Amino acid sequence: MRVGDKTFRTIWQASDAASVKIIDQTRLPHEFETVSINTVFEAAHAIKVMQVRGAPLIGVMAAYGLALAMRADASDANLDAACGVLAAARPTAVNLQWAIDSMRGLLLTLPPAERAPAGFAHAGAIAEQDAVLCRAIGEHGLRLIQAVAASKQGRRVNILTHCNAGWLATVDWGTATAPIYMAHDEGIALHVWVDETRPRNQGASLTAWELGQHGVPHTLIVDNAGGHLMQHGEVDLVIVGTDRTTAVGDVCNKIGTYLKALAAHDNGVPFYVAAPSPSIDFSIEDGIAEVPIETRSPREVTHISGLGADGRMETVCIAPAGSGALNYAFDVTPARFVTGLITERGVIAATREALAKTFPERIGKRS
Amino acid sequence: MRVGDKTFRTIWQASDAASVKIIDQTRLPHEFETVSINTVFEAAHAIKVMQVRGAPLIGVMAAYGLALAMRADASDANLDAACGVLAAARPTAVNLQWAIDSMRGLLLTLPPAERAPAGFAHAGAIAEQDAVLCRAIGEHGLRLIQAVAASKQGRRVNILTHCNAGWLATVDWGTATAPIYMAHDEGIALHVWVDETRPRNQGASLTAWELGQHGVPHTLIVDNAGGHLMQHGEVDLVIVGTDRTTAVGDVCNKIGTYLKALAAHDNGVPFYVAAPSPSIDFSIEDGIAEVPIETRSPREVTHISGLGADGRMETVCIAPAGSGALNYAFDVTPARFVTGLITERGVIAATREALAKTFPERIGKRS
Repeated sequence: MRVGDKTFRTIWQASDAASVKIIDQTRLPHEFETVSINTVFEAAHAIKVMQVRGAPLIGVMAAYGLALAMRADASDANLDAACGVLAAARPTAVNLQWAIDSMRGLLLTLPPAERAPAGFAHAGAIAEQDAVLCRAIGEHGLRLIQAVAASKQGRRVNILTHCNAGWLATVDWGTATAPIYMAHDEGIALHVWVDETRPRNQGASLTAWELGQHGVPHTLIVDNAGGHLMQHGEVDLVIVGTDRTTAVGDVCNKIGTYLKALAAHDNGVPFYVAAPSPSIDFSIEDGIAEVPIETRSPREVTHISGLGADGRMETVCIAPAGSGALNYAFDVTPARFVTGLITERGVIAATREALAKTFPERIGKRS
Repeated sequence: MRVGDKTFRTIWQASDAASVKIIDQTRLPHEFETVSINTVFEAAHAIKVMQVRGAPLIGVMAAYGLALAMRADASDANLDAACGVLAAARPTAVNLQWAIDSMRGLLLTLPPAERAPAGFAHAGAIAEQDAVLCRAIGEHGLRLIQAVAASKQGRRVNILTHCNAGWLATVDWGTATAPIYMAHDEGIALHVWVDETRPRNQGASLTAWELGQHGVPHTLIVDNAGGHLMQHGEVDLVIVGTDRTTAVGDVCNKIGTYLKALAAHDNGVPFYVAAPSPSIDFSIEDGIAEVPIETRSPREVTHISGLGADGRMETVCIAPAGSGALNYAFDVTPARFVTGLITERGVIAATREALAKTFPERIGKRS
């Protein structure tokens, strides 16, 4: 997607064919820098410190991480060690394990000498497949926005989103943002309410940035504000992403998503979840009981980083010295609050029946 | 209440009897400083920049502001001018206008020479009355906490609160916190989840600070986290304050309160609002349609202040240079989501009937 007057993806193989380049998302929105990833440890670090984040992109980073590991040492032992290093980097996103399993399954069938080139090729294919999925989600979601736009007769369509399920969270297009970019590119008058998404402010630092770079009108709001906007008719639809959706349609996504779903439900605002199939976990049902929720450092709550008055990144403490903090990264929105899942195969109900009918090949297997 | 090993109120007449002292709440939680207020303009400024904030305390500050104005020039013209200056400082809190009207009504009946001393005396009485109201709210709310504690058989009672309806928002005790302080002082095992309350972080900077100073166990969370905690049984009750409650029980309070009420409702968690009667506005009914909601500077969303690494206050920008922001300060929780109002006359239903029965003298008059 557009960054200034150039076009980027979030991850690509470097021209030396021996490393991978990423956009360092911890420096956005103030600085745009790319970073070379040369080893599996650098890949795991990039995932852990969230230089790359977003369920789909984490999966692609892990896949390239295994290719880099094979380049250093293509033994079975090193493959297992590398899988372990990557799997431990973030516990919640199902795509991470999915990508690791997909890569491992392929690489173990090959003689060591073929593993590095085959690993890079397969990681590249996973990346390409993600872009294809996002594009398809965009096309299906576009029709939802077109329908709202038709009903508003020229008045702008207001869409609320939470966190970053944008192209920065994927390889290209994004999930929640794909319909938005396509609608904007088609000339539909739209405007996005961007939840800042505490504690890491991915809305402020990533979603607002990427919408701005692509020229999409948007306004930053605090996470507390969405309910008020919905009560006053200022939100036509909500589109969010998902880190893991269960077999019955419960949606695990960034902490606070559930609160917006409740507000949407109370105000009759459609609440859609852009859910590429790799993020659907058919092995679990009850999202609240079964999805493990990552707790992150309390420091993400008590300290906030941003651009200081002197133009350098600074970190400030907002809490009293003696107060502790607790930092759950995700919550679960029960399926009953989800108007529909925007999948690469179409917009479907968040129900066991619709999911099973849409992805019959996934039923009865662990995903 | 306790600050270190001393006891403070939030506002008091200075020993020179010619000025008023306040705690500068914009410097909390990192620095504890008191400020002298010498003129009505300084009083209005303190309200506007939120050195004093919280509906009850704003009312007391305005009352003292009029006393200070009378000390400088006790004419009717100056009284009217001073009322105008103060009324313009914050538009939403009903206590501000209530205190101004109360003072003005008294002062106009007096000859100018008596207005300054009578003004200080009446402002002092308003302050004392606020402390009495808060104490009564504490006693009624204490019984709610005692009942939960009894049902938990020794396990700690978890209370969630939003923003600061603590003693810093009042003269003493606080509204939402009064039952908490009393239960803690009585030896009930309790713990408070403190919403940070973006954009101004009053939870992090004020509520966490005052609970910590008083020794009440508490944990800071982002505003996004409360729903997840409620889904997992980690919240036994919610107690929040209110800036304005309507004749039918709709509750206007800090932006984001509505989202917590929705989550409490969805999870069967009791949602109480500590509502001293001066914050009840019997002249309006439909909170969503009728309460004017203050919009504040977008900079409060895009910039965050805190303690930098070098120990000085710093302000950092978290948003991209080109992104705008919108900053509503309050939202309205419809009465149907409110389990009860904790008033100085007891815990009552958030209904027209209960409010009218509890405050019969207020019915039929503009409050």
